[in-house]
Amino acid sequence: MAAAGFRRSVVLKRRPGGEPSRGDFDIREDPVPHPEAGDVVTRTIWLSIDPYMRGRLREEQTYATAVQIGDVMTGETVGEVVESGDPAFQPGDLVVGARGWQTHSVTPGKQLVKIRKGAAPLSAYLGILGMPGATAYAGVTEICKPKPGETFVVSAASGAVGSVAGQLAKRAGARVIGIAGGPDKCFWVQDSLGFDDCVDHRSIDLRGELHAACPNGIDAYFENVGGAVQAAVFEQLNPFARVAMCGMVSQYNEKTPPPGPNLGFVVGKRVLIQGFIVSDRPERLTEWRTMAEPLVAEGNLVYREDVIEGLENAPDALAGILTGRNFGKLLVKVSPEPS
Amino acid sequence: MAAAGFRRSVVLKRRPGGEPSRGDFDIREDPVPHPEAGDVVTRTIWLSIDPYMRGRLREEQTYATAVQIGDVMTGETVGEVVESGDPAFQPGDLVVGARGWQTHSVTPGKQLVKIRKGAAPLSAYLGILGMPGATAYAGVTEICKPKPGETFVVSAASGAVGSVAGQLAKRAGARVIGIAGGPDKCFWVQDSLGFDDCVDHRSIDLRGELHAACPNGIDAYFENVGGAVQAAVFEQLNPFARVAMCGMVSQYNEKTPPPGPNLGFVVGKRVLIQGFIVSDRPERLTEWRTMAEPLVAEGNLVYREDVIEGLENAPDALAGILTGRNFGKLLVKVSPEPS
Repeated sequence: MAAAGFRRSVVLKRRPGGEPSRGDFDIREDPVPHPEAGDVVTRTIWLSIDPYMRGRLREEQTYATAVQIGDVMTGETVGEVVESGDPAFQPGDLVVGARGWQTHSVTPGKQLVKIRKGAAPLSAYLGILGMPGATAYAGVTEICKPKPGETFVVSAASGAVGSVAGQLAKRAGARVIGIAGGPDKCFWVQDSLGFDDCVDHRSIDLRGELHAACPNGIDAYFENVGGAVQAAVFEQLNPFARVAMCGMVSQYNEKTPPPGPNLGFVVGKRVLIQGFIVSDRPERLTEWRTMAEPLVAEGNLVYREDVIEGLENAPDALAGILTGRNFGKLLVKVSPEPS
Repeated sequence: MAAAGFRRSVVLKRRPGGEPSRGDFDIREDPVPHPEAGDVVTRTIWLSIDPYMRGRLREEQTYATAVQIGDVMTGETVGEVVESGDPAFQPGDLVVGARGWQTHSVTPGKQLVKIRKGAAPLSAYLGILGMPGATAYAGVTEICKPKPGETFVVSAASGAVGSVAGQLAKRAGARVIGIAGGPDKCFWVQDSLGFDDCVDHRSIDLRGELHAACPNGIDAYFENVGGAVQAAVFEQLNPFARVAMCGMVSQYNEKTPPPGPNLGFVVGKRVLIQGFIVSDRPERLTEWRTMAEPLVAEGNLVYREDVIEGLENAPDALAGILTGRNFGKLLVKVSPEPS
C-alpha cells in the first residue's frame, strides 16, 4: 500500500529557555499508520514555519494548548493523500490543514481542505493564500481600516504577514511604510511590493528615519514585532490611530517580557489597540482564499518564499524566523511535489 | 446694571512641576465686562474641578490647547445670566457651558445651554448630568459594552465618572467591582451605589484582593487611574476583554510617565484597549442628559458631591482630586444659588 513504510516526526524533547535549537527536539521514527474511519493519511510536502510556534513551546498556555514534551511539534502543512478513511478524499488529492512536523500525518478528513490543482503553487496555501495571508487580511480590514491618504505602517514588512498587510493597505489607498531588518529586505519591500518607503529597524536613528518616512504621523499600525520598533511607532501615532496587534516576535524568546509603553497617549490621542488571532473566525480563511487566489494568479499580490530543505532542519528554521534570518514566507520542503 | 462691579479670576502664574498648588496661580480683579452682541455675561454659581485640568497646565499640548501663563484657568461652570447680548438669553436664566475659574464669565450664547429649572439640582449639571456622566456613558456603551453576567471593573469608583460607569454596567446586567482608595469610599461604593464588591487600591495585596473579587476574571475595565491598579487589572483580563481608557490620574503630576505594561497579552487574549474623549462627539452630552435626567430624579442613578467653598480654594481642590482627597464629584461653590 502507498502508506506503507516509516515516517519521521519532530517531537519536543525539552522546553527551550531562550532561542529554540535542534537539541530541544528529537526525531522519532514509527510506521506510517493506516487511517481509522473518517481519518486521512497524508504525505507532507510543505511545512509552514511561523513565529507563533514559539508560544507553543512554553510551559504556560496562551490561547492555544502548549505542545507537551514528547509530542509531535505542531504546524500547518500541504500534503498529498496517501490513504483515506474518509470517502471525501482519494489518494493523490492535495490538501491543506494537516498539522505536524512529520513526514506523514493522520488527520480527520473534516479538518482538511482540498487544493484546486493549478490555481496557485502548492506552497502559497501556507503563505499568502493561507493563515498568514488571512491574518493580514483580518488585521487590515477589521482593525487598521486604512483610508485613502492615511499613513499605514507595518513591521516585519518583508515577512509572510507584513508583506500582505502592506499590499492590502496600498490597495485601500493608504501611504504604506514598511519596517524591516537590513537593506536587502527594505529594497525588496519598496521595489517589489511597491511600498512607499521602508525603514531599517537596525538603523541607529530608527525614530528619526521613521519620522522622515511618515512626515504626517501614523494613522494605522500593523504590529508584528514589539520592542523598540513598537516604541518608535507609538510615539508617532496620530489622533484616532488604530493598532492591530498581531504579534510581538522580538520578545518571544524572552523569559520575562520587558516593560511596555506608558499608555497615557492612548487616552489623549484616542488610540485603538486591538489584539486578534485569525483562527478565532475560521471562515476568514476561506473568504480570504477566494478573494486572493485570482489576485495572486494575476500578479496583483506579490509574495516571496524562503525555503529550507528537509524536515530535520525545521528547528533551525524556527530559530531563524524569531530573529529575522528568513527573507519572505519561511517553509520547509519535506518531500517532493507530485510530478 | 446687574453686571456692574468687579469680578475675580484665577489665572495661571507658573506651570506646576508636580502637584499644583495655590502659588501656581494668581487672583486677578477687573470690572465685570458688558457683553458684545451675541455674548452673555454669567455669574458663576458652581465650578467643576476635574482631573483633566492638570493636562491644561502642561507646556506641551495634548488634545486641547494648554492654558497660557496669565490666562484664566479653564473649567465648566453653572451660572446665572446677569446681562445678555444674545436675544436667546435673559437675565436670571440658569445656564451650563461657560468656562473659567472666575466669578463672572463672558461666553458666546451659542456655547451655553439653558437648564430647565427644577429638573435636578444645579450642581448635577457639572457631574452626573454633565461631562463626567456623559464620559461614563460613552466609555461604557461604546467601548466596554458589558454583557449580563460579565465582570466589569472600574477604578476611581467613587469619583464623578467611575460611580456612573459602574451603575451603568450594573444596569446592563454585569457583575461590577469598584476600585477605590480607603474603606469609606469602598463602603459607599458597595452600600450606596450597589456595586457587587469594591477593592481598596491601598491594600498591600491589591492583586490578591482583586482576584478574590473577580474569580472569573475581568471582561471589561473602565480605566481612570493607571499605575499599579492598571497593572493588576491587566493581568486578570479575560480573552476578548475591552478596556475603555478614560484617564490615568495617578501619573498626571509626573514629569516623565513610568513604563507601562508589556502588551504581549493584548495579542494572546485579543484585548481591545481604546482611548476616548467625550467632547469628540458633543451630541453625546445632550443624549446622556435627556436619558439620565429622569433616572436621577427617580433616584435610580446615585451620586455624591464634595463641595469646596470659595473660588480662591479652586487650586487646592485641583491638587486634591489628583491624589484622591475628594470623595465624590468635586465642585467649588463660587456664589449662592438664586433663591
